[in-house]
Amino acid sequence: MKTQIKGNYVIGDAEAVSALYDAGGFGRPRDSSLQLRFTEAAYLLSRNKIEIFKNGKETDFDSFIQFAAQQEEFFELKYIVYKDLKERGYYVQSSATDFRVYPRGSKPGKGSAKSFVFVRSERVPITLLELTALINEAQNVRKQFILAIVDEESDITYYDVKRADAVGSFEGEMPVPFLPEVKNKPSKAVLFKERIILADKEKADLLYKRSFFGKMMDEERLLLSLPEALYLAENNVLELFGMNGEKLSDEEFSKSASLIDSEFPRKYTIYKELKEKGFVPKTGFKFGTHFRVYRKVETLDKIPHSEFLLSVVPLEYEFKLPATSGAIRLANSVRKRMIYAADLGNKREYIEFERIKM
Amino acid sequence: MKTQIKGNYVIGDAEAVSALYDAGGFGRPRDSSLQLRFTEAAYLLSRNKIEIFKNGKETDFDSFIQFAAQQEEFFELKYIVYKDLKERGYYVQSSATDFRVYPRGSKPGKGSAKSFVFVRSERVPITLLELTALINEAQNVRKQFILAIVDEESDITYYDVKRADAVGSFEGEMPVPFLPEVKNKPSKAVLFKERIILADKEKADLLYKRSFFGKMMDEERLLLSLPEALYLAENNVLELFGMNGEKLSDEEFSKSASLIDSEFPRKYTIYKELKEKGFVPKTGFKFGTHFRVYRKVETLDKIPHSEFLLSVVPLEYEFKLPATSGAIRLANSVRKRMIYAADLGNKREYIEFERIKM
Repeated sequence: MKTQIKGNYVIGDAEAVSALYDAGGFGRPRDSSLQLRFTEAAYLLSRNKIEIFKNGKETDFDSFIQFAAQQEEFFELKYIVYKDLKERGYYVQSSATDFRVYPRGSKPGKGSAKSFVFVRSERVPITLLELTALINEAQNVRKQFILAIVDEESDITYYDVKRADAVGSFEGEMPVPFLPEVKNKPSKAVLFKERIILADKEKADLLYKRSFFGKMMDEERLLLSLPEALYLAENNVLELFGMNGEKLSDEEFSKSASLIDSEFPRKYTIYKELKEKGFVPKTGFKFGTHFRVYRKVETLDKIPHSEFLLSVVPLEYEFKLPATSGAIRLANSVRKRMIYAADLGNKREYIEFERIKM
Repeated sequence: MKTQIKGNYVIGDAEAVSALYDAGGFGRPRDSSLQLRFTEAAYLLSRNKIEIFKNGKETDFDSFIQFAAQQEEFFELKYIVYKDLKERGYYVQSSATDFRVYPRGSKPGKGSAKSFVFVRSERVPITLLELTALINEAQNVRKQFILAIVDEESDITYYDVKRADAVGSFEGEMPVPFLPEVKNKPSKAVLFKERIILADKEKADLLYKRSFFGKMMDEERLLLSLPEALYLAENNVLELFGMNGEKLSDEEFSKSASLIDSEFPRKYTIYKELKEKGFVPKTGFKFGTHFRVYRKVETLDKIPHSEFLLSVVPLEYEFKLPATSGAIRLANSVRKRMIYAADLGNKREYIEFERIKM
């Protein structure tokens, strides 16, 4: 079947509409002709379904993809992903977000697409803002957003990227029960270099055993992390002091904490919101993230697996895709969700990445 | 038992030597007295084994550790680790590399230490050069080098850090068998944006199926990564061309590759050495590392698990410990070794991290 390159399309005739669009969902009918994108045309050409002519001369596959790669940005990446999706048996349509993919059993003109697929090279970072814009675009028309990353060796990794509350509520089951005996008489705690010591056995026991705050240093003393200490001070459970016995206001403590950990303000904003949502956030150091987060910790004798790992990122964050890939892979390999959180000022965004098989 | 703070030590008398050193391996005898480091003294004080006097006045535990933390850098971290090692039943001696740890069943004055333990906060990066100096120090006296990282919540993660050839040879089993039919007539391959297309079915088959180079794009074409292509060109298996048909020398190709991936020169040096050692390096994108490396790939029908993950780092690299922790955790969770490689100019260093339980 003969087709012609015209501008950014490869054009087929009425016969192409019935053979390729009606039967296979390729291209878009325009008047009585068929518009094929370069990716579609390359795929059809590689399977000998069409011949492509350019200025009256037939072009072979290698020449065509070189031509297409010069005309269209990221053609080679899109072709790799398009081909993969087709070989997996999907109907795929080109769109603003690279591709619309139809659910199995459906196709263009029959049902509606289920997912938007956006294609990226592992070498090109994606900013948080770009990503949330893409998610919004898909969410507004109730589509799943899929990020397809093509790696150095042309393998594709697919990620379902969504807001963490897109599937069910994003809430824990541990509203902090500050018992009156914990709350009404704040205990003295001392900022001891990078950590905080609470030397009050009774309160230490209550905070550690009931709410999983801190880590016991010995029988009597609890070591708290910086966010834990500030959260407890703000809730009037602790009074904070410096090593020389000076009282520290919450603001003074925050300032000291920020000198110890420059990311502290950002991390604390998220820590606090997670606590208010009823989660139990603890450090994610062992996983290379800021937090590991439990939905509920009923007893310390049997600490459950944490449900997700969370990294707090600034608004101007760029996802460097190899590092992001590693983080998601680790989370998934220990059966946890991987979430990135950012403070937008008026609200917090929680973006979840899940590696999926198409 | 009474002891006195003197300078950077807590000093006990002859009775302390027999009760603490002879029986428990604490401190170091000096003349007829016992020198305790602050960590040891704090530990003994917390267990009510000693009383500590400062200028004739007894000091309690909280005051003592505050004093010690002001006198000795990282005292609080060392104390946390010292206490943990003691509670696990080890004999521990202070040394230049923080601690010497004796194997179970042995103790100071009886056998010799097995490991050097170096303590660090997760917040303080460690440079590659500092780390190799520490490994050398341990290796020179045939000790194991252990890095103990104290995280934000005072949990400790222990890593056995060593050269990758410290346990058995660091070699693969796949000397590249460039058959005469592959090598003698270099095939044309084209740099197609970020990847290389070899459109020679026979050679593509041989390279892919026999040596696991690249990934088949379709029945006839092999997609190669930048390091694969350069390696094959250097071995006269390929001739490289640009998209406009211009021949590329190995140097010209390297230059183009470095524009696509600024880390290319560093990565290629290691890639090439790994190939020469008989390994099969492939991209580690899915794991967030530069390479995943196989010892042997006999057949593509049954690709074995890769043996290690490898990241290539510059000489001036700083390990940011949370990220390093995540990388090692991921490698271990998929049962692979985690190795960092750097080019020192005259040789390449391969440093392996393994998380261990003490």
